[in-house]
Amino acid sequence: MQKGIIVSISLILAAALAGGFVAFAPSTAAGDEGMWTFDNPPAKRLQEKYGFTITAEWLEHVRLSSVRFNDGGSGSFVSPNGLVLTNHHVALGQLQKVSTPEKNYVNTGFYARNSGEEMKCPDLELNILVSMEEVTRKVESSIRKGLSDSEALKARKAEIAKIEKESLDATGLRSDVVSLYAGGEYWLHRYKKYTDVRLVFAPEQQIAFFGGDPDNFAYPRYDLDMALFRAYENDKPAQSRQFLKWSAKGADAGDLVFVSGNPGSTERLRTMVELEAQRDHLLPTVLRLLKRRLGVLRKYSDLGQEQARQAAAQIFGIENSLKAITGEYNGLLDKGLVAKKQKEESEFRRLVAEKPELMKPYGDAWQEIAQAEKQQLERVNEIYFRSLRVSRLNSLALTIVQYVAEVRKPDGERLDGFHDAELESLRFRLFSPAPFYPAMETALLADSLQQSVEELGPGDAFVKAVLGGHAPGDVAKQLISGTKLADPAVRRALVEGGEAAVAASNDPAIVMARKIDPLARETRKWIEDNVESVLTKAGEKLGKARFAVYGKTAYPDATFTLRLAYGTVKTYPMNGTQAPPHTTFYGLYDRAHGFNMKPPYQLPARYLERKDKIDLATPLDFISSCDIIGGNSGSPVINRKGEFSGVLFDGNIQSLPARFVYSDEQNRSVMVHSQGILEALTKIYNAQPLVNELLGKK
Amino acid sequence: MQKGIIVSISLILAAALAGGFVAFAPSTAAGDEGMWTFDNPPAKRLQEKYGFTITAEWLEHVRLSSVRFNDGGSGSFVSPNGLVLTNHHVALGQLQKVSTPEKNYVNTGFYARNSGEEMKCPDLELNILVSMEEVTRKVESSIRKGLSDSEALKARKAEIAKIEKESLDATGLRSDVVSLYAGGEYWLHRYKKYTDVRLVFAPEQQIAFFGGDPDNFAYPRYDLDMALFRAYENDKPAQSRQFLKWSAKGADAGDLVFVSGNPGSTERLRTMVELEAQRDHLLPTVLRLLKRRLGVLRKYSDLGQEQARQAAAQIFGIENSLKAITGEYNGLLDKGLVAKKQKEESEFRRLVAEKPELMKPYGDAWQEIAQAEKQQLERVNEIYFRSLRVSRLNSLALTIVQYVAEVRKPDGERLDGFHDAELESLRFRLFSPAPFYPAMETALLADSLQQSVEELGPGDAFVKAVLGGHAPGDVAKQLISGTKLADPAVRRALVEGGEAAVAASNDPAIVMARKIDPLARETRKWIEDNVESVLTKAGEKLGKARFAVYGKTAYPDATFTLRLAYGTVKTYPMNGTQAPPHTTFYGLYDRAHGFNMKPPYQLPARYLERKDKIDLATPLDFISSCDIIGGNSGSPVINRKGEFSGVLFDGNIQSLPARFVYSDEQNRSVMVHSQGILEALTKIYNAQPLVNELLGKK
Repeated sequence: MQKGIIVSISLILAAALAGGFVAFAPSTAAGDEGMWTFDNPPAKRLQEKYGFTITAEWLEHVRLSSVRFNDGGSGSFVSPNGLVLTNHHVALGQLQKVSTPEKNYVNTGFYARNSGEEMKCPDLELNILVSMEEVTRKVESSIRKGLSDSEALKARKAEIAKIEKESLDATGLRSDVVSLYAGGEYWLHRYKKYTDVRLVFAPEQQIAFFGGDPDNFAYPRYDLDMALFRAYENDKPAQSRQFLKWSAKGADAGDLVFVSGNPGSTERLRTMVELEAQRDHLLPTVLRLLKRRLGVLRKYSDLGQEQARQAAAQIFGIENSLKAITGEYNGLLDKGLVAKKQKEESEFRRLVAEKPELMKPYGDAWQEIAQAEKQQLERVNEIYFRSLRVSRLNSLALTIVQYVAEVRKPDGERLDGFHDAELESLRFRLFSPAPFYPAMETALLADSLQQSVEELGPGDAFVKAVLGGHAPGDVAKQLISGTKLADPAVRRALVEGGEAAVAASNDPAIVMARKIDPLARETRKWIEDNVESVLTKAGEKLGKARFAVYGKTAYPDATFTLRLAYGTVKTYPMNGTQAPPHTTFYGLYDRAHGFNMKPPYQLPARYLERKDKIDLATPLDFISSCDIIGGNSGSPVINRKGEFSGVLFDGNIQSLPARFVYSDEQNRSVMVHSQGILEALTKIYNAQPLVNELLGKK
Repeated sequence: MQKGIIVSISLILAAALAGGFVAFAPSTAAGDEGMWTFDNPPAKRLQEKYGFTITAEWLEHVRLSSVRFNDGGSGSFVSPNGLVLTNHHVALGQLQKVSTPEKNYVNTGFYARNSGEEMKCPDLELNILVSMEEVTRKVESSIRKGLSDSEALKARKAEIAKIEKESLDATGLRSDVVSLYAGGEYWLHRYKKYTDVRLVFAPEQQIAFFGGDPDNFAYPRYDLDMALFRAYENDKPAQSRQFLKWSAKGADAGDLVFVSGNPGSTERLRTMVELEAQRDHLLPTVLRLLKRRLGVLRKYSDLGQEQARQAAAQIFGIENSLKAITGEYNGLLDKGLVAKKQKEESEFRRLVAEKPELMKPYGDAWQEIAQAEKQQLERVNEIYFRSLRVSRLNSLALTIVQYVAEVRKPDGERLDGFHDAELESLRFRLFSPAPFYPAMETALLADSLQQSVEELGPGDAFVKAVLGGHAPGDVAKQLISGTKLADPAVRRALVEGGEAAVAASNDPAIVMARKIDPLARETRKWIEDNVESVLTKAGEKLGKARFAVYGKTAYPDATFTLRLAYGTVKTYPMNGTQAPPHTTFYGLYDRAHGFNMKPPYQLPARYLERKDKIDLATPLDFISSCDIIGGNSGSPVINRKGEFSGVLFDGNIQSLPARFVYSDEQNRSVMVHSQGILEALTKIYNAQPLVNELLGKK
């Protein structure tokens, strides 16, 4: 599932390891490659290859119909009344949060028959990209000559915070400056933001995620991975003037289709040194960490039905990440892939070396990156294992402790994440009324602390500060059972009470956060000074060198900002044969019966009862060559006319190394077909009012 | 498709390159590995792993119910009245031969509603293995001390011919001596033979081979690859006292099942030198040859509907072989596989080297084999390209020329294939009334001659003898248009007229055969003297060494004789997920619709018209871990009670390297389910009388 779980991991890596990804797009995109920014769509290629003229109107229509799910996914407006379609697995976190021991909507699904039944989400923020403005010169002008690397980094961050704040003040819109082409360009993105978002419809997870973890990232597939939310403004359904009209026919083999969404991160032009560090150190560490966490969750889940309910979303997320990262890791172990990347880099270096006017200013970038990578690896275990982040309560505690300190500083001097322009979204998350599961957090934290001891040793400063000679299990129990932070009012009181309130708090989670805050800051500063600042500078050099050598004919690496991908619905070679361009409801029943309906291949009761009502030949899922990655989950699939043809939910197993390299022959994105959605809503769920809204009927 | 096409290629290799395969089974069979002879079933393992007691009665029941299709497949008796079930693709050759431009049973299928409509096959011979007798000592006693390698080979062949002849005379049964364990054992097999075999039922090829070449060797699969014949004796249905009762339930996931059939050839313990020769020389040559032949056939097929009809069976056969051999070839290119084989060989050699009593008599075998392989490669192109075998008419001509010469010699001195015990079956084939397609033969022969020129050069003796300075196309045209051999009576007259008639013949194919006969004999003799005799001797050494080191705990390599495999119905990891233990009719419609019913995914009209009659959840195909290979096509799948649970028709794509190594984790045989067959016969074909016969109902 192409959810932001993968993004999250990458964001952990990104946040912890380096601010500036030294990575951007290959010089020439092959086949249907590319995650294009809306200011630079592949117009020429679309015209030549598909006879499609991409207009400004079309682009604006698609952009304003596209919705970002801020916790790591994508979606789209599909009615003028704020109806947003995304994946079930993007909705899963919210479904988990609105469920109770008595009402488990993850299992049963949910359908609001009228607007009164639509159910408010505790902490879901949706963003619409309403404007884009290039601010490269502004950012660069902040870097005076003669600054050290770390001074330059600081100056740049301060300037970015200033641009964001000014934009926010002037427009009231969420304002993010993003670095593209590894710092080759900076753009100010302004978003219309919705924080009153309500759940309208979700099918049973059993059909949304039919086939479970085994079938995840596999194709042929038979999942109804969709859900509907509605954005509200002033307690009324939002008016979404731009939305995607429903294509009742949907896409068929050979059709040109587009995917508009927010791919989380790619690393297609990382230097070889960085890829090797990922292969040899970072990815094995992440896999080790996740596998252990999964073990704890499974054990907890086995304790009973309610425990299973609590752990379900996290188990899904970790299994999903493990499968995705394992695929990426295997990509890096593949000699063919590595040889291809090596060849690209050698060619680029040769072209730079040939021209003294490039070699002189940019030629040392590779060496600088290699040096920074080497430094980073010295503290890699600290970065992963000096943390309580496995506990949401303790994460919030650290955020609160840092929040009250940071907001007192001038905006430009604050830690990332605490700039003025970011505070509203941050507070929305901080004060979320979503439920906690203390017993589960205790189990996770106990094991995480135990792993910290094993990885860092008992003499490590973090280990000593946290455990103070006690057993991990005891410390975890004391922290989770003692804290009152589960109550949003307590969190709000601390934040509003400022440094004094936080300093005076006896809450054990706050006490602990105060203890580890200096260590976290020290690590962060060390990374900025020794790694991030070097990589940012070197990344910009490579970015400029690449523009000089290849021109701006390519797309930047993914950054969880809006991108347009294109491709056709088409087969690919697999398993000794070829994949069908689409699947049907027939296949759903085939696979269920083929496994005698044993989990994860059982069918929800409705699907057995109403089987004879369904036209089984209706397309259910389909594939295209569109270039996507985690974060694209929930992206609309759009036809030439700008209509909704389906919703993306996955990539095939062959696409996992797409983090590093795209293959037209093998990579396929996997989507739910618009016909399949309508058939299910009509025949299985009797959701005629929703169908009418989607089809624009009264 | 696990048909004997693969066997045929191997038999070409085997016949041309070496009599004694230097190959037999690994010391310890892993998982459900093994193609066991009926004298040495894996009784202990079946008892321990599956709690199944294999009795002499059970074995006899299964053996006498098993049918060998002499042109390269397997089958079984499924009623007491001689009804034989096999694969459609095993029946394909006969279907082609009984079809006419007006009635194409390959396309339309065939169903005899009563015995009067059953249609006699022109040249199908079925064999039932009625007795097995070890004759190792007898064969070995014929080799006096002091004989040279080639004298020893001659003596052995003479002794084998003598044993066969004596058995035939004494019992009237077809009598074959086979070498097992690379000459470690010799066995006399006696077969009851049926040559009056009539076609009873075949579905449309479109459903038997649904998915065509792309889906061939793939799984999940949705093929009704079955056909029914009836054996006759004295113009009446044969009484088959031993037959498999129908299991209406069939096999389900986890069930123990057996496959009884005739695997063509495996090479699991070839020496490394031989595997390298296959990889570097033999397989690339075969692939080159087949691809070119396929090109000619496709071009011919494109000329029109009738041409397409004529070429269909051969195109299927070559595509099938190409896919299988490509899989085998890729297996040999796989470093993991090669390392495994290398390790096995090193271990075996070490154990032999440790014991002087083994090292002295057997230790030089590897060196001898290496030397023979090297010799063989010197003439490998001659072996493949000094031939007219692409033309059936010219093949028959050469057989006739050799026949009349050979039968005049003492039995023990004849070429292989012309011994007394073999003559009846040979004459049955020689005088077959099956139709010829002269235009197709001309096209094939012209291109084959052109390829001979390219591969051997214009100065080669064969090329000069055949072309005599003329163009390949002209020679082919002259040969095919001039010969009268398409008439069986002409062939019979020549054979019965003996050497005088053949010498006097002006038939251009006979004239050509007389010209190339000396060259063919010379090549054959050279191979016997330089390769086959050495490999036979060295193979026996390795065979004995292996018995000494490992004991007789293993099975011999496949030799197109009756074997028993066992395993369970179970999934395997594939495509990032797992395969369903069985498929259903639902999946057939899913795959057809998923490709919009474009070829090769269209459905026969009956399947659209009668769809609503079918219980779509009925199992159609299923898989097991049984160890099989080409030649096993049509083998019955048998449950613990000795009942018919399905018919084997394929292996999965992962099983293709099974020629060299079996993997319990990955290798799966693919079968049609007994429930699927009944459902189709009942609901689609209205073949109630057949269903009643299968179920033993009146």
